[in-house]
Amino acid sequence: MQYRIEKDTMGEVQVPIDVYWGAQTQRSIENFKIAQDINKMPKEIIRAFAYLKHGAALTNHELGVLPKEKADLIGTVCQEILEGKLDDQFPLVVWQTGSGTQSNMNCNEVIAYRGHVLQGGELGDKTKFLHPNDDVNKSQSSNDTFPTAMHIAAYKMLIGVTIPGIEKLRNTLAEKSKAFMEVVKIGRTHFMDATPLTLGQEFSGYVSQLDHGLKAIKNTLSHLSELALGGTAVGTGINTPQGYSESVAKHIASLTGLPFVTAENKFEALAAHDAIVEAHGALKTVAVSLMKIANDIRMLSSGPRSGIGEIFIPDNEPGSSIMPGKVNPTQCEALTMIAAQVMGNDVAINVGGAMGHFELNVFKPVMIYNFLHSARLIGDGCVSFNDKCAVGIEPLKENIKKHVDNSLMLVTALNTKIGYYKAAEIAQTAHKNGGTLKETAIKLGYLTAEEFDAWVKPEDMVGSLK
Amino acid sequence: MQYRIEKDTMGEVQVPIDVYWGAQTQRSIENFKIAQDINKMPKEIIRAFAYLKHGAALTNHELGVLPKEKADLIGTVCQEILEGKLDDQFPLVVWQTGSGTQSNMNCNEVIAYRGHVLQGGELGDKTKFLHPNDDVNKSQSSNDTFPTAMHIAAYKMLIGVTIPGIEKLRNTLAEKSKAFMEVVKIGRTHFMDATPLTLGQEFSGYVSQLDHGLKAIKNTLSHLSELALGGTAVGTGINTPQGYSESVAKHIASLTGLPFVTAENKFEALAAHDAIVEAHGALKTVAVSLMKIANDIRMLSSGPRSGIGEIFIPDNEPGSSIMPGKVNPTQCEALTMIAAQVMGNDVAINVGGAMGHFELNVFKPVMIYNFLHSARLIGDGCVSFNDKCAVGIEPLKENIKKHVDNSLMLVTALNTKIGYYKAAEIAQTAHKNGGTLKETAIKLGYLTAEEFDAWVKPEDMVGSLK
Amino acid sequence: MQYRIEKDTMGEVQVPIDVYWGAQTQRSIENFKIAQDINKMPKEIIRAFAYLKHGAALTNHELGVLPKEKADLIGTVCQEILEGKLDDQFPLVVWQTGSGTQSNMNCNEVIAYRGHVLQGGELGDKTKFLHPNDDVNKSQSSNDTFPTAMHIAAYKMLIGVTIPGIEKLRNTLAEKSKAFMEVVKIGRTHFMDATPLTLGQEFSGYVSQLDHGLKAIKNTLSHLSELALGGTAVGTGINTPQGYSESVAKHIASLTGLPFVTAENKFEALAAHDAIVEAHGALKTVAVSLMKIANDIRMLSSGPRSGIGEIFIPDNEPGSSIMPGKVNPTQCEALTMIAAQVMGNDVAINVGGAMGHFELNVFKPVMIYNFLHSARLIGDGCVSFNDKCAVGIEPLKENIKKHVDNSLMLVTALNTKIGYYKAAEIAQTAHKNGGTLKETAIKLGYLTAEEFDAWVKPEDMVGSLK
Amino acid sequence: MQYRIEKDTMGEVQVPIDVYWGAQTQRSIENFKIAQDINKMPKEIIRAFAYLKHGAALTNHELGVLPKEKADLIGTVCQEILEGKLDDQFPLVVWQTGSGTQSNMNCNEVIAYRGHVLQGGELGDKTKFLHPNDDVNKSQSSNDTFPTAMHIAAYKMLIGVTIPGIEKLRNTLAEKSKAFMEVVKIGRTHFMDATPLTLGQEFSGYVSQLDHGLKAIKNTLSHLSELALGGTAVGTGINTPQGYSESVAKHIASLTGLPFVTAENKFEALAAHDAIVEAHGALKTVAVSLMKIANDIRMLSSGPRSGIGEIFIPDNEPGSSIMPGKVNPTQCEALTMIAAQVMGNDVAINVGGAMGHFELNVFKPVMIYNFLHSARLIGDGCVSFNDKCAVGIEPLKENIKKHVDNSLMLVTALNTKIGYYKAAEIAQTAHKNGGTLKETAIKLGYLTAEEFDAWVKPEDMVGSLK
Repeated sequence: MQYRIEKDTMGEVQVPIDVYWGAQTQRSIENFKIAQDINKMPKEIIRAFAYLKHGAALTNHELGVLPKEKADLIGTVCQEILEGKLDDQFPLVVWQTGSGTQSNMNCNEVIAYRGHVLQGGELGDKTKFLHPNDDVNKSQSSNDTFPTAMHIAAYKMLIGVTIPGIEKLRNTLAEKSKAFMEVVKIGRTHFMDATPLTLGQEFSGYVSQLDHGLKAIKNTLSHLSELALGGTAVGTGINTPQGYSESVAKHIASLTGLPFVTAENKFEALAAHDAIVEAHGALKTVAVSLMKIANDIRMLSSGPRSGIGEIFIPDNEPGSSIMPGKVNPTQCEALTMIAAQVMGNDVAINVGGAMGHFELNVFKPVMIYNFLHSARLIGDGCVSFNDKCAVGIEPLKENIKKHVDNSLMLVTALNTKIGYYKAAEIAQTAHKNGGTLKETAIKLGYLTAEEFDAWVKPEDMVGSLK
Repeated sequence: MQYRIEKDTMGEVQVPIDVYWGAQTQRSIENFKIAQDINKMPKEIIRAFAYLKHGAALTNHELGVLPKEKADLIGTVCQEILEGKLDDQFPLVVWQTGSGTQSNMNCNEVIAYRGHVLQGGELGDKTKFLHPNDDVNKSQSSNDTFPTAMHIAAYKMLIGVTIPGIEKLRNTLAEKSKAFMEVVKIGRTHFMDATPLTLGQEFSGYVSQLDHGLKAIKNTLSHLSELALGGTAVGTGINTPQGYSESVAKHIASLTGLPFVTAENKFEALAAHDAIVEAHGALKTVAVSLMKIANDIRMLSSGPRSGIGEIFIPDNEPGSSIMPGKVNPTQCEALTMIAAQVMGNDVAINVGGAMGHFELNVFKPVMIYNFLHSARLIGDGCVSFNDKCAVGIEPLKENIKKHVDNSLMLVTALNTKIGYYKAAEIAQTAHKNGGTLKETAIKLGYLTAEEFDAWVKPEDMVGSLK
Repeated sequence: MQYRIEKDTMGEVQVPIDVYWGAQTQRSIENFKIAQDINKMPKEIIRAFAYLKHGAALTNHELGVLPKEKADLIGTVCQEILEGKLDDQFPLVVWQTGSGTQSNMNCNEVIAYRGHVLQGGELGDKTKFLHPNDDVNKSQSSNDTFPTAMHIAAYKMLIGVTIPGIEKLRNTLAEKSKAFMEVVKIGRTHFMDATPLTLGQEFSGYVSQLDHGLKAIKNTLSHLSELALGGTAVGTGINTPQGYSESVAKHIASLTGLPFVTAENKFEALAAHDAIVEAHGALKTVAVSLMKIANDIRMLSSGPRSGIGEIFIPDNEPGSSIMPGKVNPTQCEALTMIAAQVMGNDVAINVGGAMGHFELNVFKPVMIYNFLHSARLIGDGCVSFNDKCAVGIEPLKENIKKHVDNSLMLVTALNTKIGYYKAAEIAQTAHKNGGTLKETAIKLGYLTAEEFDAWVKPEDMVGSLK
Repeated sequence: MQYRIEKDTMGEVQVPIDVYWGAQTQRSIENFKIAQDINKMPKEIIRAFAYLKHGAALTNHELGVLPKEKADLIGTVCQEILEGKLDDQFPLVVWQTGSGTQSNMNCNEVIAYRGHVLQGGELGDKTKFLHPNDDVNKSQSSNDTFPTAMHIAAYKMLIGVTIPGIEKLRNTLAEKSKAFMEVVKIGRTHFMDATPLTLGQEFSGYVSQLDHGLKAIKNTLSHLSELALGGTAVGTGINTPQGYSESVAKHIASLTGLPFVTAENKFEALAAHDAIVEAHGALKTVAVSLMKIANDIRMLSSGPRSGIGEIFIPDNEPGSSIMPGKVNPTQCEALTMIAAQVMGNDVAINVGGAMGHFELNVFKPVMIYNFLHSARLIGDGCVSFNDKCAVGIEPLKENIKKHVDNSLMLVTALNTKIGYYKAAEIAQTAHKNGGTLKETAIKLGYLTAEEFDAWVKPEDMVGSLK
């Protein structure tokens, strides 16, 4: 490979001749040979930096500390980054400095050097039109840019992927709930037969879980909307022009179309990432919900002949490499694996969040890596589960009816007529002797056949259907 | 020990002659010999049941299904429970049935039998004035009472212990922040010397963390305010009179003085406890904040001679059984241990929350046990930390000044004057040769003594102080 | 309450007149008002201190730094502690200093003052025969005693409660496995019908899990057998006589009957508790196993009429306060809740273990509290599950047979005869049209009735039974 | 894009014309659009399948169920996979069916079709020389191949990356410990000054932690060495020839050079992955150790002027984009972020491990994904930390000496001379009045200057140095 020489404050570094990055990016590649093939800094963070650097350039220009030509050039490169044209210029991994300084410098270098080339210069030029630190990073520090990029990336992912994914699934489940509202089925508590409800009611619980989950996520957006930018090195805003914080937040809000504001307290914004911890707390709540829902659906569809077998789910692929004709609830499995992952990611985020010290939390990359992972998995996972499983769910009415008709727990309807103890005696006797509730109740002399038929009606035991 | 005979639907059971509980409580004692000395069902749950049973009795009477005399008697016993008079009548442990049925029955039995005695009966009477199932548990199931008790207990603990505890600490830190607002000190990022800020600014970050944490907790109260009661066995509300759900929620709201409402969806309310998962997500966010704050404070107070030593914290006890005169940041240690516990409890809650099946989550006791533990620890821990540590924090100004004066990172003020690269050269040279910034800067010829004095003023590097 | 005055190096403290503890214990009560009603320092730690203080006294005497009379007196009080006679003299909570200094001093004070009284003195005496620091704590520091007590308590609990509990359950499951070895049943993978196995084979998997779990726990005992004692303040062993470490470990080994040795490296032994982290890693592995086993058993016993219903488990109590005659798998629920708790405790331990700094980890109490909790819960939980559930498990052969006879996955036996694709076609056609495998296979023309009967025999599909 | 038609038991599928995969791989791509750009099935699993499929082919041939020509061809393709030549033929993600069936089929298809092409056929041929199910997957099921691949991949990663990485760091730290063994420094407990030790002693604790961690990992290898292969669909070994399990394990052992054996109990081996849970428990123990070690090192190197500043660590890159000349402990940060990740991954593994049901655990991909992630991160992280940080650590003796000389805790040496209480008075008085220990001790009249000099020697307070 051919190299050119780049410099930073520590001296010269050989850099591949045709890349836009510079000395500090190269140092990081060489200093952090950790899972480089699998753990690149998430591209959402790089894109977030593009918004941020553009916003900072606009603000710096407005406030008189950056010439228009430079600001425009920075904006042009940022646009290229957002379009994905420079993706291969961001080779760094998550496992770098905990402030994300090296990824910030990677952005600064690429913007400066790509800008220089766009402007007609050459990569080999000693002096370049844009300086990574003095121009692109002007009025900024890694310490406030990286957390700003974290919030931009997290917020965008939640709005663009996570919430729509959950909503899509929620809406399908709501439709199913409505469609199945009259299908009376046996309830199950403790895995044991219980009083009846309708399949639509059962599904309404899933809808309600996701509605609450969506609300929980949305509750956390306010904290995520606060941007650290303007705090610079330690939160005091050293080396920023007057009015910078508010203005740069406005520019970023405008560029992203999202309601970002400057953080009220910059010291917190650098030293802690409780917004990420809090918001991921909502994500793990949704993961917990999804685990429940997907478990139910695979158990309800279990069988086809020796399980519960009360619903049909689509057959998407052969299920077994050895058992011919087998079909499995694979979408449920992907979704529950995702839930497990999110529950693990939550702990990584908690540990990282807890270990900020003094003016800076230096677990920034691991925190946002896990956050974006979870947010993406939930969003994608809900869409996949929706499209390939939930939309095709149908009741298997024959099995459902058989289970209701057999159930001993219909006896509960008699509590208010003959009391809990006599009702229990009927159920226990029927269970022991294998008879039906009706014949047992009559044999025990607690009521007549007519009374039984009048009092024990599954469809009357499911309450109001709305 | 002497016994009397009690009966349930499974037959006769020997019960200690003078206890108010009955057959089902006794069965549970014998069936679950698991950590009985250390893991009693939290008393907050028992108290929550007292509100609930009273509210249910009032509602049942209003709706014409329970005579006034019985409702009043139930209310009287509930009052005794709330006053702690019957604490020793609740011997069951957390590790019982996952629906909490046995603790519900413990409450039903104690209320029925204590009521019977209050009414003039004797414990040995075959027939008692109140029946545990048919009267005390009327219009209820364990499946809706236990989650209702969970929400009542959780909400009350948050409002009564957790939030006030956090607020107390938050207010002290806010006062300290104000008092220390002019104390210029060295910043530290990556544990390394950075640009200055004031001690008050540093503390303002802690205040902001707790403010956000309080907001996060309060955001979750809405979900917690939803009560499952009225769902009975599987969420359909079987065996409840018309209007019961709304009415019983109102009564409980009135009895507790808290804004409880009936859950919109009872199927979720029984089958999932996402409200607990969500709210504990906020608690663990606060735990993460407290870990950060307490860590900072113990490191800032480290020394007394070979550490950071920038603040004084109160000496509460001798710190070492072998090193005479040693004093340790023990309140910080208790608080960080609490944070670790809450982070663990969060996982127990997640696992429990994820594993509800069909119409019922049967990890109810373990979920509320961990929730109440965390809520209590955070509340008590904040008060202890506040009273025995935070209120006494004072700056050690001599050390603070020495650290600022020595710092090489004041060089950052020169970025906008002479550029990042020359500034770096000054700092690196001073570090290498051991000199001061000023003498190094002059020697390198980048600026004059006058310029240095004019440009490098720590007090000008801390931004606005508010 | 009446008080007497006690003194420590910080001055005078009022102590209840009749307690054996002194100034430092009292300070801790007043300084740490955190969950005092529910989180006492585990009694196993207090007992472990009794072994330790006795062993230290014996060693100090042998090495000539403590008179025989004092050593004997210390031993006598330690014996009282081990017999539980002084339980109410240890009022401190987990949430104290992270080194456990205050519990060490609580032990020192109680031993000194109780010894003084045993010797004929009075609690109010200004000078006492035994001094908490200079005699009882001689050659010790909290920093080496508390971790020593941690290892003693943890090791004893594992040997005395956890391992026997797991073994008891393991043996019952092994008996069941043998008894059920010929009961051919349908297999289930992905919750879907699969090829058959025997119920005994299924249970043999549980036995194997527990066997591996027991091995995993035992693998960690070696690290737990290392005692920190002799490291004193920072691991250097300051203020200990020559030969102390080895000798005191021998005494403790002799007193406890367990193979304790002195830790090779005392610096680790004070500054890190990886032995606790490692051993709890084994406990959580067992918790994971128990979750799987208990889940299987409750699902296999589900029904009685609308579930899987392949095994019977004992009815221990009425299952529902509203559904008469309902019986639930409550022991499975207790055990799975325990598993959830252990998985949470693991995280608390990890966080605590990770945050030791320099010469001391100050998350000692929270680590051992969680460890002992898990070890106890697993031990007690296995015994309860064994005695009240596992021993009574019986196959429900009628249901088992019905499920095998219906299964489409018996078609797998044809793979090697007619190939995977044709076999799949048979299964899919039978599923679609509702027929049996045999009639479908014949109708499709892939084999004759005779071939089907010869090739598809469930009892031939289960491999070797041993 | 151009397509060809491939078929599976569900029908026809369009597959890109020039890929080696077939219908089932293609279905999975379309059915699981979940994080496809970032969460490919780890390549270590694909490589493990190559060993496995080769071993199975050899065994099948030996046992007479596969012709030599086919076995050889399978072996040839497996070799290509191991050499990485077919990496782009494995497009599937972690978030697929929980049994990993689709990745097993991906391997079967690629081996079959690539083999067909190697043999002279064309991808478009209707019939191919090798059949994915009937040849490549012969005597196998996803249910036993995927867990076998899990163990192969995990074991290889531990042996090839994790353990050597830890050992490398351990050895460097051992060298440093030896080199620094005479450097007397102040100890710190609770972050507070304590009695002295040597820097070499401090580092010896790290070495001991890693030694124990290595032992803990090695303890888990035995369980990981057990292979599920031969269990096929549900553990019974249906459709395998006599002697298959033992033979295939031997072949895999021979191909990998690792001591694999057939699992004693195949039912466990399919239905539970406790070996992964157990082994990851050891990895998280090491993560906990690394967090401690890296934290210590960054705090010991903190400063350069206002921190602890007792050791030098190498400057690898400019540390700040705004603070010129700043250098940060970035390798410590990467390592502690890794530790946080591993602690999170542990929970994902626990949750997945706990949720196997009946004959199959269907969290296989998420479990091995997290396991390999952790094992890789620890291995790579230790090497990076070693090469770029640990090897360059040097004591800063001037600061170290200053801290020792100032310390008040040298007073501990007087405990055995004048008693704990008088010693405490000296330390407290010196602290209060700002004097040295010596002058205070003399002023208080507790000893003479000569006694002080004779008794208080830091170098005598550090115990034996070995």
